Amino acid sequence: MAFTPLHDRVLVERVESEEKTAGGLIIPDSAKEKPAEGVVVAVGAGARDEDGDRIEMDVKKGDKVLFGKWSGTEVTLDGKELLIMKESDIMGIIA
Amino acid sequence: MAFTPLHDRVLVERVESEEKTAGGLIIPDSAKEKPAEGVVVAVGAGARDEDGDRIEMDVKKGDKVLFGKWSGTEVTLDGKELLIMKESDIMGIIA
Amino acid sequence: MAFTPLHDRVLVERVESEEKTAGGLIIPDSAKEKPAEGVVVAVGAGARDEDGDRIEMDVKKGDKVLFGKWSGTEVTLDGKELLIMKESDIMGIIA
Amino acid sequence: MAFTPLHDRVLVERVESEEKTAGGLIIPDSAKEKPAEGVVVAVGAGARDEDGDRIEMDVKKGDKVLFGKWSGTEVTLDGKELLIMKESDIMGIIA
Amino acid sequence: MAFTPLHDRVLVERVESEEKTAGGLIIPDSAKEKPAEGVVVAVGAGARDEDGDRIEMDVKKGDKVLFGKWSGTEVTLDGKELLIMKESDIMGIIA
Amino acid sequence: MAFTPLHDRVLVERVESEEKTAGGLIIPDSAKEKPAEGVVVAVGAGARDEDGDRIEMDVKKGDKVLFGKWSGTEVTLDGKELLIMKESDIMGIIA
Amino acid sequence: MAFTPLHDRVLVERVESEEKTAGGLIIPDSAKEKPAEGVVVAVGAGARDEDGDRIEMDVKKGDKVLFGKWSGTEVTLDGKELLIMKESDIMGIIA
Repeated sequence: MAFTPLHDRVLVERVESEEKTAGGLIIPDSAKEKPAEGVVVAVGAGARDEDGDRIEMDVKKGDKVLFGKWSGTEVTLDGKELLIMKESDIMGIIA
Repeated sequence: MAFTPLHDRVLVERVESEEKTAGGLIIPDSAKEKPAEGVVVAVGAGARDEDGDRIEMDVKKGDKVLFGKWSGTEVTLDGKELLIMKESDIMGIIA
Repeated sequence: MAFTPLHDRVLVERVESEEKTAGGLIIPDSAKEKPAEGVVVAVGAGARDEDGDRIEMDVKKGDKVLFGKWSGTEVTLDGKELLIMKESDIMGIIA
Repeated sequence: MAFTPLHDRVLVERVESEEKTAGGLIIPDSAKEKPAEGVVVAVGAGARDEDGDRIEMDVKKGDKVLFGKWSGTEVTLDGKELLIMKESDIMGIIA
Repeated sequence: MAFTPLHDRVLVERVESEEKTAGGLIIPDSAKEKPAEGVVVAVGAGARDEDGDRIEMDVKKGDKVLFGKWSGTEVTLDGKELLIMKESDIMGIIA
Repeated sequence: MAFTPLHDRVLVERVESEEKTAGGLIIPDSAKEKPAEGVVVAVGAGARDEDGDRIEMDVKKGDKVLFGKWSGTEVTLDGKELLIMKESDIMGIIA
Repeated sequence: MAFTPLHDRVLVERVESEEKTAGGLIIPDSAKEKPAEGVVVAVGAGARDEDGDRIEMDVKKGDKVLFGKWSGTEVTLDGKELLIMKESDIMGIIA
């Protein structure tokens, strides 16, 4: 079952980040405002600018991303818990 | 009786999603913020950009879509309970 | 007495929809959020886009339309109770 | 004494509408949200679009107009009680 | 001492309007929402449109204007009590 | 130590205005809403218009300006108390 | 581990400023509204203007910047406490 997000939406699978990794990303559970980590599963075709043209998306399928902990809408697709959010909710790409 | 939504509005027929399907979409009734599932029945001609030109719609008749559970205005057309919503209320297309 | 709505305004005569018609539109009186039905009596010349050009109206005189139950401003013209509303308050055209 | 409204402002003289006229406009005093009737006394040169060009006004001196009952700012000019309002407060022209 | 208002600002000297003049402007002291009268002392070079170009000012030095009673910021320049306000606070020009 | 304000920001050094000068600017300490006086120390490269082009700044280093008494963010640079504010907080230039 | 901020976001490492330096920047701990000091670690590709084109960033990696004390979202990357903020939260560059 494929899901294509509309406009500038992105489908993200949340990744539980380990508490402590050598050289890795650490997001302690107690952190109130720290962003969450996830992997992009599908991206929309992009929002439109004021002339009605598409704005190319900056994230692509497979990107490991950081996003606001409370961003997006939860959806269950093929038994997986996923998140639909706007690209603007994504803070950056971890490489 | 035909109904043509104005601008960027979409006419959607809600689909009651089964609680549990193999490889299917699962939206438990208890989920507070989970999107609802539906089928697009009719689409408007599109909103206009800042130059007054139409912006092409991204969904078309027959598309199976996810939308916010409380999106849209209920209307009864030919005895069917339908929803009129803006395309921006639609989160994505299931294929 | 003629009335010409300004900009993107529309003059609409409300139609009391029958409770139950075969193949017709049914809007029970108890429905809280269901749209109302009406006929367009006059339309404005259209709003202007950001370059100052007119945006053509999507509804025309005689169109049977659905609009938000509480939309518009009531006005009595030639003894008839009419509504002045913005085209954006109209959800679609019934044909 | 002449008064030239700035931008998209309009100077309007309120007309007390008769309670009941054959084929005329009727605005009972008890109506809470019904628009008021007036005659345009002077119009501004027009607001400017995003390129700084003037947007032509849709009403002109002498037009009989309907406007929101509470629209505009009262001003006394040459002993007459007048209203300065934006053209967007005017709902339409009666002809 | 010269003062040049920035952007679309205007320097205005308030004029105490006489309570009653033959054929003149009358603004009784008790009026809550009535505009005040003043003379333009200096005008800015104009705001900029969305392309960064200047929008020409509609008022000029010496214009007798009406403005919202509570508009602007008071400033004392060369011993005179003046007001700095945006051109959009000015309702029109008296000639 | 040099400080370059970003975008349309301006670095301003507040000037304590004398209470009473012949032909000078007077800002009594009791005035609640009267603007403050200062000298521009550094200006940003300018904000960008909707096409991404720079909008030229209207103030320059050395300009004596009036600004809202509570405008800007205080910063201590090289031991001096300075203010970083947006150009739009500046009301005009004293010459 | 590299982190690429999206759009007009910037990754900043906060610098604890010394209380008192000769000719240096002083930000006393008691200051309520004083900006914080930091170094830019990574910058996004830039936001897009209304035509969908990138707007070039004004800060670059290594820039010593001032930003609002409460700006940005904290994130721990490779064991370092960093901040993701929008370029517009940065007030200026110290050189």
